[in-house]
Amino acid sequence: MPVNLKPLTIDSIFPIKGISLGSAKANIKKPNRKDLLLITIAKGSKVSGVFTQNAFCAAPVLLCQEHLKNTSGIRALIINTGFANAGTGEEGILMAKETCQAVSAILKIKSEQVLPFSTGVILESLPIDKIRNGLSDTLKNLDPTNWIDAAEAIMTTDILPKAESRKIKIQDKEVFITGISKGSGMIHPNMATMLSFIATDASINQSLLDKMLKEVTQQSFNCITVDGDTSTNDSFILIATGQAGHHEINHEGKDYEILKDAILEVAIKLAQAIVRDGEGATKFITIQVESGLNNIECKKVGFAIAHSPLVKTAFFASDPNLGRILAAIGKAGIESLDITKIQLFLGNILVSEKGSRAFSYNEAQGQEVMRHPEISMRILLNRGKAKVTIWTCDFSYDYVKINADYRT
Amino acid sequence: MPVNLKPLTIDSIFPIKGISLGSAKANIKKPNRKDLLLITIAKGSKVSGVFTQNAFCAAPVLLCQEHLKNTSGIRALIINTGFANAGTGEEGILMAKETCQAVSAILKIKSEQVLPFSTGVILESLPIDKIRNGLSDTLKNLDPTNWIDAAEAIMTTDILPKAESRKIKIQDKEVFITGISKGSGMIHPNMATMLSFIATDASINQSLLDKMLKEVTQQSFNCITVDGDTSTNDSFILIATGQAGHHEINHEGKDYEILKDAILEVAIKLAQAIVRDGEGATKFITIQVESGLNNIECKKVGFAIAHSPLVKTAFFASDPNLGRILAAIGKAGIESLDITKIQLFLGNILVSEKGSRAFSYNEAQGQEVMRHPEISMRILLNRGKAKVTIWTCDFSYDYVKINADYRT
Repeated sequence: MPVNLKPLTIDSIFPIKGISLGSAKANIKKPNRKDLLLITIAKGSKVSGVFTQNAFCAAPVLLCQEHLKNTSGIRALIINTGFANAGTGEEGILMAKETCQAVSAILKIKSEQVLPFSTGVILESLPIDKIRNGLSDTLKNLDPTNWIDAAEAIMTTDILPKAESRKIKIQDKEVFITGISKGSGMIHPNMATMLSFIATDASINQSLLDKMLKEVTQQSFNCITVDGDTSTNDSFILIATGQAGHHEINHEGKDYEILKDAILEVAIKLAQAIVRDGEGATKFITIQVESGLNNIECKKVGFAIAHSPLVKTAFFASDPNLGRILAAIGKAGIESLDITKIQLFLGNILVSEKGSRAFSYNEAQGQEVMRHPEISMRILLNRGKAKVTIWTCDFSYDYVKINADYRT
Repeated sequence: MPVNLKPLTIDSIFPIKGISLGSAKANIKKPNRKDLLLITIAKGSKVSGVFTQNAFCAAPVLLCQEHLKNTSGIRALIINTGFANAGTGEEGILMAKETCQAVSAILKIKSEQVLPFSTGVILESLPIDKIRNGLSDTLKNLDPTNWIDAAEAIMTTDILPKAESRKIKIQDKEVFITGISKGSGMIHPNMATMLSFIATDASINQSLLDKMLKEVTQQSFNCITVDGDTSTNDSFILIATGQAGHHEINHEGKDYEILKDAILEVAIKLAQAIVRDGEGATKFITIQVESGLNNIECKKVGFAIAHSPLVKTAFFASDPNLGRILAAIGKAGIESLDITKIQLFLGNILVSEKGSRAFSYNEAQGQEVMRHPEISMRILLNRGKAKVTIWTCDFSYDYVKINADYRT
């Protein structure tokens, strides 16, 4: 079961002026589950996106990048689960285009104004007829309050839907932010994660929206991992409909920071929700790497720990086998790392320093921290001022089970 | 159970003139199992070693590197299991030194002529008294024919002992090579693997022995992975006693090549044995990456596949979910990779080309290959002439079980 991830309640998720959502059960891969989502975006909204850096990126990712060359013209997102439309070559591009054309026909917009997204099995064809058939149903229940329903419609191996909202004030006007995400395995986003969409009714110019998207990504979706596998379909889309009524944000000042902080909060919550619902997860682990020379080396250390199957299985067992954390730090490939300077804390307990077990540490202390479902550790490199936080989960029998059974 | 790894028979493993081996049950961590091994080396032998690049390398690794500054003076190796003597700081160095002194006392050699090795739990102290007490037993059964016994004495989570021999002719003299290895988890050697020792009675000068060691390492122990975790204690030692009776090999010609090829064969067999006995392994997987620009990018692609938990769990399930292989290739970080040129073969079956499923491929073909315990795949990058082979295993429930229970 997901680690401290609560079911969503309708009153905690705010609608966003200018955004409507509708889902359908289109029988794309399995019968009787929501698997198709249409999101419509009001005219004049601005849209920004980041995508996977996997060289085998999916056909819809390529088409999104093409269509986003005209960022202010985007009017709809179409998302299917079941098949990823990745590893599908020329035919895959054609299917993604036909998906956009089908949306364009029912919404009376241009096909270039549609962004397509897919998630599911790689190397198999997208059943375009089922998507076409399902589209009219999505249109029937199109509504601004459908965010939770939308979060459910994009789930694959996810156990719970993921959504998050914030309300802030800019120039005394109420501004709303709401986002959804999905993803549970193949999670080590290298740019963005497996499908996340955040919308706000704030008004902001395109270049600042693009900048904000990149800054937020670096501190949220690019700081999580479940299994170290970067998906072919990772996409994170940020939409600003500009309908909140305040003057457009057109420089980096107080308004920009207020909006960015709130969007970052939503993005971090959504990113953490993906880890909490990581395939087979029983522990939510926060890895804080501090006093590094720069962010890059802090991330390397954090991900070396977060990707280590030996660290992850020890956490699953609630076993403070903390030597494995040191071994992971040591293999991170950090130049001229002085291991005698490193301090490792588990929770608030100093576990290791001077290249060895801390004098004050005893196993019972480690055991006490490890038995909780939420565990944090701090690694102090003591050689600089950079600091990065990485979130991950443990590695359980169920991860193997889920992924051994995935296609059956 | 190990994948196609046969129990050793005494007549398949040759003694090496100048090498004797003796083991003991020293109760280092668990009672009633061989856990201490002494290897003596005749005067005048040459010794070369490579070690882990993990920054948290163990105390014995540091001491080995120090003692190997006088390569022709080495007269004994002492190896314990149970505790790795890694993450043990100043005290660990002291314990490794005391181990060497104890050996020096019973063999009447200098303590700098001893190389110490440890494997086991990290971050816990080495019980030096138990090692001292066990040493006299190792001396009692010291014998040149004890190689299989020695292979058993260095096992930790290994299920079967690992040894391999070759007999060749150099200058019409019979030359013998025998090696042992251990290792089952924390296997992604980055220089050498968790304890492997190969000896030959060939005669070769020191600089060529060093060169040979590096060449052999690159094509054997540095081409395997079980879980991507680089150990703190990886060590690979090559010993040439020079007692076969031929003239010393002192240039790179026919004799050098004959000897290197045979040692490489032994090293590859030992490296493969580690993977076959990888923790929880049910499949032995050979990944051949061909027609790359250079060896580095071929290795990156091979290890990206070999480290992917999603690929490994699909192999465990005998599920030809081959899109996961494409996703792993795509995340390998290869510059300007043209995915439309890549061809993927599973066994002899062309699975994917032109960025898509091959027209001729059907699932039944993939299923047929996947059900075997030995599976090979070929990835043709079609952009150069480099070629690398990587060996790995699948990822099973038992890997999680073994590593969740490791210290109990």
